[in-house]
Amino acid sequence: MDKKVLNGLLRPKSVAVIGASNTPGKIGYSVVDNLIKDGYQGKIYPINPSSPEILGLKAYPTITDVPGSIDAAIVTVPAKIVPAMAEECGKKGVKGFIVITSGFSEVGRKDLEQQIVDTAHQYGMCVLGPNIVGTLSNSDKFNGSFAPCLPLAGKASLISQSGALLIALDAATYTRKVGFDKLVSIGNMSDVDFADIVEWLDEDEKTSCISLYIEGFKDGRRFIEAAQKTKKPIIALKSGVSAHGAAAAASHTGSLAGAAKVYGAAFRQAGVIQAADLNDLFNKTQAFSEQPAMKGDNLLIITNGGGVGVLATDAAERYGLPLKFAPEDVQAELKKHMPEFGSAKNPVDITGMGGNEWYYDCVKYAFAHKWVDGLVVLYCETAVTNPQEIAESIKKAVVDSKVKDKPVTVSFVGGERCDAAMGWLVENGIPAYGAPDLAVQTMAGLRDYAKLHEKKASFDFKSNAKARKTALEIVAAARADGRNALTEIEAKQVFKAYGLPVTDTQLAKSEDEAVTLAKKVGFPLVMKIVSPDILHKSDAGGVKVNIKDEAGVRDAFKTIMANAKKYKADANIHGIAIQEMAPMGTEVIMGSVNDPTFGPTMMFGLGGIFVEVLKDVTFRVAPIADDQAVEMIGEIRGAPILAGVRGEAPRDRKALAETITKYSNMILDMQDEIAETDANPVLVYEDGKGLKVVDARMILKKK
Amino acid sequence: MDKKVLNGLLRPKSVAVIGASNTPGKIGYSVVDNLIKDGYQGKIYPINPSSPEILGLKAYPTITDVPGSIDAAIVTVPAKIVPAMAEECGKKGVKGFIVITSGFSEVGRKDLEQQIVDTAHQYGMCVLGPNIVGTLSNSDKFNGSFAPCLPLAGKASLISQSGALLIALDAATYTRKVGFDKLVSIGNMSDVDFADIVEWLDEDEKTSCISLYIEGFKDGRRFIEAAQKTKKPIIALKSGVSAHGAAAAASHTGSLAGAAKVYGAAFRQAGVIQAADLNDLFNKTQAFSEQPAMKGDNLLIITNGGGVGVLATDAAERYGLPLKFAPEDVQAELKKHMPEFGSAKNPVDITGMGGNEWYYDCVKYAFAHKWVDGLVVLYCETAVTNPQEIAESIKKAVVDSKVKDKPVTVSFVGGERCDAAMGWLVENGIPAYGAPDLAVQTMAGLRDYAKLHEKKASFDFKSNAKARKTALEIVAAARADGRNALTEIEAKQVFKAYGLPVTDTQLAKSEDEAVTLAKKVGFPLVMKIVSPDILHKSDAGGVKVNIKDEAGVRDAFKTIMANAKKYKADANIHGIAIQEMAPMGTEVIMGSVNDPTFGPTMMFGLGGIFVEVLKDVTFRVAPIADDQAVEMIGEIRGAPILAGVRGEAPRDRKALAETITKYSNMILDMQDEIAETDANPVLVYEDGKGLKVVDARMILKKK
Repeated sequence: MDKKVLNGLLRPKSVAVIGASNTPGKIGYSVVDNLIKDGYQGKIYPINPSSPEILGLKAYPTITDVPGSIDAAIVTVPAKIVPAMAEECGKKGVKGFIVITSGFSEVGRKDLEQQIVDTAHQYGMCVLGPNIVGTLSNSDKFNGSFAPCLPLAGKASLISQSGALLIALDAATYTRKVGFDKLVSIGNMSDVDFADIVEWLDEDEKTSCISLYIEGFKDGRRFIEAAQKTKKPIIALKSGVSAHGAAAAASHTGSLAGAAKVYGAAFRQAGVIQAADLNDLFNKTQAFSEQPAMKGDNLLIITNGGGVGVLATDAAERYGLPLKFAPEDVQAELKKHMPEFGSAKNPVDITGMGGNEWYYDCVKYAFAHKWVDGLVVLYCETAVTNPQEIAESIKKAVVDSKVKDKPVTVSFVGGERCDAAMGWLVENGIPAYGAPDLAVQTMAGLRDYAKLHEKKASFDFKSNAKARKTALEIVAAARADGRNALTEIEAKQVFKAYGLPVTDTQLAKSEDEAVTLAKKVGFPLVMKIVSPDILHKSDAGGVKVNIKDEAGVRDAFKTIMANAKKYKADANIHGIAIQEMAPMGTEVIMGSVNDPTFGPTMMFGLGGIFVEVLKDVTFRVAPIADDQAVEMIGEIRGAPILAGVRGEAPRDRKALAETITKYSNMILDMQDEIAETDANPVLVYEDGKGLKVVDARMILKKK
Repeated sequence: MDKKVLNGLLRPKSVAVIGASNTPGKIGYSVVDNLIKDGYQGKIYPINPSSPEILGLKAYPTITDVPGSIDAAIVTVPAKIVPAMAEECGKKGVKGFIVITSGFSEVGRKDLEQQIVDTAHQYGMCVLGPNIVGTLSNSDKFNGSFAPCLPLAGKASLISQSGALLIALDAATYTRKVGFDKLVSIGNMSDVDFADIVEWLDEDEKTSCISLYIEGFKDGRRFIEAAQKTKKPIIALKSGVSAHGAAAAASHTGSLAGAAKVYGAAFRQAGVIQAADLNDLFNKTQAFSEQPAMKGDNLLIITNGGGVGVLATDAAERYGLPLKFAPEDVQAELKKHMPEFGSAKNPVDITGMGGNEWYYDCVKYAFAHKWVDGLVVLYCETAVTNPQEIAESIKKAVVDSKVKDKPVTVSFVGGERCDAAMGWLVENGIPAYGAPDLAVQTMAGLRDYAKLHEKKASFDFKSNAKARKTALEIVAAARADGRNALTEIEAKQVFKAYGLPVTDTQLAKSEDEAVTLAKKVGFPLVMKIVSPDILHKSDAGGVKVNIKDEAGVRDAFKTIMANAKKYKADANIHGIAIQEMAPMGTEVIMGSVNDPTFGPTMMFGLGGIFVEVLKDVTFRVAPIADDQAVEMIGEIRGAPILAGVRGEAPRDRKALAETITKYSNMILDMQDEIAETDANPVLVYEDGKGLKVVDARMILKKK
């Protein structure tokens, strides 16, 4: 979206309020009042057909009557007249059309909403909302909303899909001491969406960290692409992960893909850090808006109390940042700044006697030491030390260390004096939390961020024209046949076109043809019924394995045909598949869904019991680069099985990763045709020996 | 421990302070000062050999000089003279000997500590500490500690193993608004331990909920027994779960048992609710000290904002309390108290327009409805409602509903006004939290508590004299042989004595004997080398399976013997085991360790890959009652495999549970002899067909 247009929306130099009112309690009153009261310096044009003056400002009957140019128009008039206002604003050259009014797609009036967007786009105007609170910018003293105040000033910016929550969080910024520069209510996202504002905030010099409250994306793929390009950290709280009642799905993969898993995968691919809950969103925002990422795994904890030290140590393991002992030289130096019964290992325990000087000495030395990648400083209130002085010592030590590329977080456990000291730390750029595990949890977030960005994924993808042509022909033939699923043989032909290693499978329409094909495929082999009417082939007696010779082929052909007819007399039988019998290997499963939010999304896991009982699967949005595929293989619980257990050789994970990548390209390239797929089982052999897709399934999109 | 003695310790009517001082900064000063300043009404006797007066009170040179009787003596003199003080106090008839002084077992002076305890016990006195802050009781205005103040008054009591943390938490009670009646610092637990104080608090009328900060028990089993008998809820924060570097363990089970898992199992068996972290300890304490348990699964959420409602819904699923829609009649009634676009399902969303009356009506109706087992009320700050009024409406509705046996928790999201309103709610007995997921998390804790106590475990156990006699003979013979491990045959004999279904296994010392025994055991059978020097039998070529006749037996005997000699020429070979060949079944593993804290502790899980790769195992402290065994079988991730998957019949879980119970009795009955055991694999058959222990392993305690 055009940057200038968004400038006009989010940092307007002049604002019209359409529906401005002199009646307290009306939204049109609140918006004008907020603009004035919070000190907006730009021009304010109240628009009201009957009042010449609103809250002491000259008002205009229509927007056309305004003499100067208008960057943004904030709309509070009833829904049915909003389209006409869009037309007027467009003509006037307004850039941002901010629709606070509700009564659009959220109550079924998608048409009315679309009308506004269409009109706006005719004039190069963008639409924020409808159904929003408005948009606020501290650095512009711009409260273009009916939220009662600007938030506590800070370096983060928040985009919220819930207006009610935005108002509550706005108030909470003061009590929680987490500051924001901009708050944007995004509502129905008829036009401007998360991706647009993320891109804009990435260039906003007042924003150092982007926080999101998300209920659901409209276009998840576009968000991922925008986030991947963002240089600033993004923290996302996604709600509604439990409500996603996964619709009855035709494929195995469909039934395993829930919103939580797919969003989780998408955030990873986007390089976005997920917040666990509302408190975590605030806590991480505080850390990310003031501290750099943690670039290595060496976390050092300095404490004056064993108890909080142990709790922090537990948390470090829980959040994936387990402590290591500090090197000898670090221990030797730190040992000088604590009583004899203190500990210089990790956590560094300067004991309850630890006062300002020891805190200063230890923090300054440790923070500057090259071994330390991140520092957590804990303080447990004692009768003999002063929390404020400890806080100031910590801050001074951090400054004096001259280190700027490492993160530090703090936790003080105690009463009022501790809370006040933590407030001071936060005001001075050092995140501080009331419990030791929170200081560690946010630090772990800073570490996760660095790790995600060491190998930030990209969505590079090239269509495979030749494979696509083959695949489209097969799909067209199946559709012509009135089917919305491919047979196993057809699915394997598509797979093969995209370079996937399927077992050689040929369709025999007669017993003689079966013998001919069997000789071509080679013995031993498998024979299976091919019929769009028989999905559960084994139940129908439609599968014979380990067939060793011509006599076996003839015998199997007759038996399978007889069984199939017994099972379903009127079944449309294409013939019998003559299939290479793959040697035993480790069973894995691949599959895909066409996610309503993210589009083609792939699943990978170990097969059999692992997928059926343990649901031990992982997801990524397609396309999946090789290193992402390697990550998928490594992150399932059963990963050690592929690495080789009980003296078995490692499986061919390289070939497996390549296959995942090819598979993901296939589902993306064919996304307009394919709804869901499964490759199950896929047998993976020892290193260097590759893998084989033994069975394939492909459901087409309904057209 | 004698209740009167503990009364004297925790609610003394008179107190001596040994080491009382007029010098500010000294602990002996702080303790006397705290007793006076916080309003203690009992007699205070400062003991100081050189000052006739301390802080305005008459002081005595020795405790013997005190005219009246003394319930408790608080000791602050150096460690080396504490034993002499114990002697004097004992003679004086002191009941509680409270040792603040450090420098005992925590620095290696276990001897000095034991001396005090021995002396105390001679006189029927108990010892609290040493190495503590002291003990505090709000209802007695008794601050017998050097913590600067009594905590905020409340209905919970806290026992803390860390003194530093106790001081910090004491201060934090005011800012977090979580009140306590008693705070007890327990330190080195030389004598009085968690179990003693838990038992005492269970009868203390000022305590409604017991909170614990635990670093490690001395006698875990005694704690479980005490907790099982307690009628009040217990909440435990256990720290140091990551630090437990499990020592190199000889058995499979040993390597899988970590402190976190065993403590977790013990807490479940004890009926104790675990706190996840420090905040959760406070949050749950607040809920448990004011609210009853939640006796059914029906949670209703009432909210004025969709956003917080969805976050709470997610949390409900996360914490094991997924929402269901409210019944029709509930929906119909609630629908009357909200605008048309509100929702009466669950969460019940009365929308941002929801004011005092709607909150009142909905809360009162819902809380009184029989379908509702627990209520979470959410409020998201708006520009048009007043948090304090909403809070008062909620409280009034709860009172007017006249319901007292159901829990309610609240969350207000917003700024200062919300914090103040929540403070008011908490003062009025309704737990309130700043984030919706916390209101749900604590509610889930109240539900977990009810569930744990529906089938509270007990530690009933009877020794099996006959089995024990057999087992002791086998163990004695092995020890006489200089071994600390039983052979498979010996271990199976012990198992069999305790009623475990082992495969019939006989020891053949010669080829002819092998043939005779083979005919007794029956074909097909398995033959295995029996030698304490050959632990990895397969690697040594010491196992032959599926032997079908006499010729096979003779052949196998020769081969195994030759292989064994080749593998280890000087191996002590007992002979060859002739073993019934168990039919294929589902592999499970049982095992045990003798945990340093909890004693005999049993593990159960699925065998093979499941235990080796997924560590999918669960623990219980022995003895394990049948219903606890059923719970173990149901709580592993692979549980559906035992329930029957992929069309397979369910496994015989009844027999499996019985075997777990018998196994747990065996390891408890033999705890003085057995260190670790494994039964791996155990093959479980279809319902009604039982199971077979195929291999057994038993490591003896070093003597």
